[in-house]
Amino acid sequence: MSPTAPAPAGAVIATDALVIGAGPVGLFQVFELGLLELHAELVDALPHVGGQCAELYPHKPIYDIPGLPVVSGADLVARLQQQCAPFKPGLHLGQLVTDLARLPDGRWAATTSAGTRFEAQVVIIAAGAGAFLPKSVKLDGLAAFDGHQVLHHLPEPGALAGQQVVILGDEDLALHAANELAEHGGCARVSLLHRRDSFRASAPVLARQQALRAAGRLHFVAGQPLALQAAASDAQRLQTLSLIDSAGATQTLAVDTLLVLLGLSPRLGPIADWGLALERRQLPVTTEAFETSEPGLYAVGDINTYPGKKKLLLCGFHEATLAAFGAAARVHPQQRQLLQYTTTSPRLHALLGVAPAAVDAPSGAPPQAS
Amino acid sequence: MSPTAPAPAGAVIATDALVIGAGPVGLFQVFELGLLELHAELVDALPHVGGQCAELYPHKPIYDIPGLPVVSGADLVARLQQQCAPFKPGLHLGQLVTDLARLPDGRWAATTSAGTRFEAQVVIIAAGAGAFLPKSVKLDGLAAFDGHQVLHHLPEPGALAGQQVVILGDEDLALHAANELAEHGGCARVSLLHRRDSFRASAPVLARQQALRAAGRLHFVAGQPLALQAAASDAQRLQTLSLIDSAGATQTLAVDTLLVLLGLSPRLGPIADWGLALERRQLPVTTEAFETSEPGLYAVGDINTYPGKKKLLLCGFHEATLAAFGAAARVHPQQRQLLQYTTTSPRLHALLGVAPAAVDAPSGAPPQAS
Repeated sequence: MSPTAPAPAGAVIATDALVIGAGPVGLFQVFELGLLELHAELVDALPHVGGQCAELYPHKPIYDIPGLPVVSGADLVARLQQQCAPFKPGLHLGQLVTDLARLPDGRWAATTSAGTRFEAQVVIIAAGAGAFLPKSVKLDGLAAFDGHQVLHHLPEPGALAGQQVVILGDEDLALHAANELAEHGGCARVSLLHRRDSFRASAPVLARQQALRAAGRLHFVAGQPLALQAAASDAQRLQTLSLIDSAGATQTLAVDTLLVLLGLSPRLGPIADWGLALERRQLPVTTEAFETSEPGLYAVGDINTYPGKKKLLLCGFHEATLAAFGAAARVHPQQRQLLQYTTTSPRLHALLGVAPAAVDAPSGAPPQAS
Repeated sequence: MSPTAPAPAGAVIATDALVIGAGPVGLFQVFELGLLELHAELVDALPHVGGQCAELYPHKPIYDIPGLPVVSGADLVARLQQQCAPFKPGLHLGQLVTDLARLPDGRWAATTSAGTRFEAQVVIIAAGAGAFLPKSVKLDGLAAFDGHQVLHHLPEPGALAGQQVVILGDEDLALHAANELAEHGGCARVSLLHRRDSFRASAPVLARQQALRAAGRLHFVAGQPLALQAAASDAQRLQTLSLIDSAGATQTLAVDTLLVLLGLSPRLGPIADWGLALERRQLPVTTEAFETSEPGLYAVGDINTYPGKKKLLLCGFHEATLAAFGAAARVHPQQRQLLQYTTTSPRLHALLGVAPAAVDAPSGAPPQAS
């Protein structure tokens, strides 16, 4: 699935369903809505689908997805993407839904941090533990440069050529960025800043770091950042970073771009501002359709709560399924939602784009009574 | 999984959980119980695991299992068997649970049609649409020979050598049996009886039938069976079957063994006799733990009902999961059931018999903000 081209500024995307969160449960939500002939637009704060599964444990095995005795997070996400692909969801990545409000006609209006606007018959929140946002750092003067000379991601290759770059962080994300810039970035100087010379990163990334440091292409600075300072000639332009080094002395580093790569952490974010009833930072729902206290607003997966709730993917898949039936009944109140089976329904086969199933071949020997 | 050796007559199998029904949901129930360290014994009326999925659509594709964009019924069953294998359920196939009653100490006692007896802390009914039992036929005199000279399955090769065999049925199951006996059974005569020369069977089975009929090795009789008659010399021994042929005349066929192979159909069977509250032939349950009105008795999958219920496998998997937590709380009331994740829990890795997960390797390029 590739992200949908941005709508023209001011344009509104009208849709049956807006799904907030493109993790495994959000992806399966698109599939179940599709089987009931509801189109979905999918938004996620991360720049890719898969949510926590892709972000936190892409290569770790998961053992409790029914019918998949072992599957990695990345593989599960790929499988769910393939499964929902026939329903061609609109995909809006790297953006947060900042505002959600009911329209006078009962539908929902939503706006994202990228300015995308939706009007949806129903909204399904599949936001897990919240939006994955970059962890920030307390640093005097940071706010003035954030998003300009202070970045929370590795920019396109070449974008920092000729610059003095400082990278904050001690995990794979930061070390990989430092290695890439040192080797291929064409920067004037690349410095990695961490309070001590010890990292939580994988062996190949550490080995590459050591080689680049030995070659003098990557500089390590042990210390705690204190503040950012603007140029004397231009208060808008970041010029230096001050820090306390391991000996307790204050140092100053010249810096054109500061990369803050401390990882991502899930935050409930704007969801807490939408006026919804929350219970321990989760959305209470019915177990009939996983609807919140607001009609037409559903919550599935780790973000919801109900008696017996377990934060397991397989439970989220069930919740998404019943939420889809609830949504379909709301969007098409005049239609009775018959349960059709994907094994037998010609209508579902047409929607999925698959050939009608062949007549069941005999399985060789018939069953033997024991 | 191979069936457990029969317990000695009179022996009682004590277990944490008895799972009634070895379809996909029953198999996953064993897995979820196992993760919570509860042992399960599994009973099914069919001679194999997989239930309806294996019986009715083993080769048809299923499209709505999360993470399996397409899977056949047989493949799904094989995957679920593999998944629950680490927990080594006791397997009791080809037998119906005929009696279920509460013991004075609060546990459950169950007896099967094969005489197997269980005493279980909890019972989980995962019986789908009921037990798959052979469809019978109304035929005067049948009861006297049922199970002896009237069979509902194809017996072991050679068991009917030298006999006059009549087969009732018009689908793959019956035709396959007729073909096998005609070709390899060493029978004196093999006759297929159906009201007309038209069958609901697959092309290869039909072609083989035609060839065997053309060769005079298989005889087709068009007619409706009327009654079975004993030998004059021995009222216990079946000798003839009378029928009305297509011209309306009565005929008599000599018969040593009658195979009634009209297929299987699910029947609620003894479940209806256990004194449980039923609602349209289904068991009402809570959505917190999928418990029936009887404490310690759970119902999961197609056999249960609750507001919003959809008869879908993926919903049954969720139900089995919450039922397992409910069962664990009942069996070990003093232990708090913490939710552990199969990706990270060393305890679950030990139970599953898998090596601890390796440190997550970096996925190449770190995520790029869009």
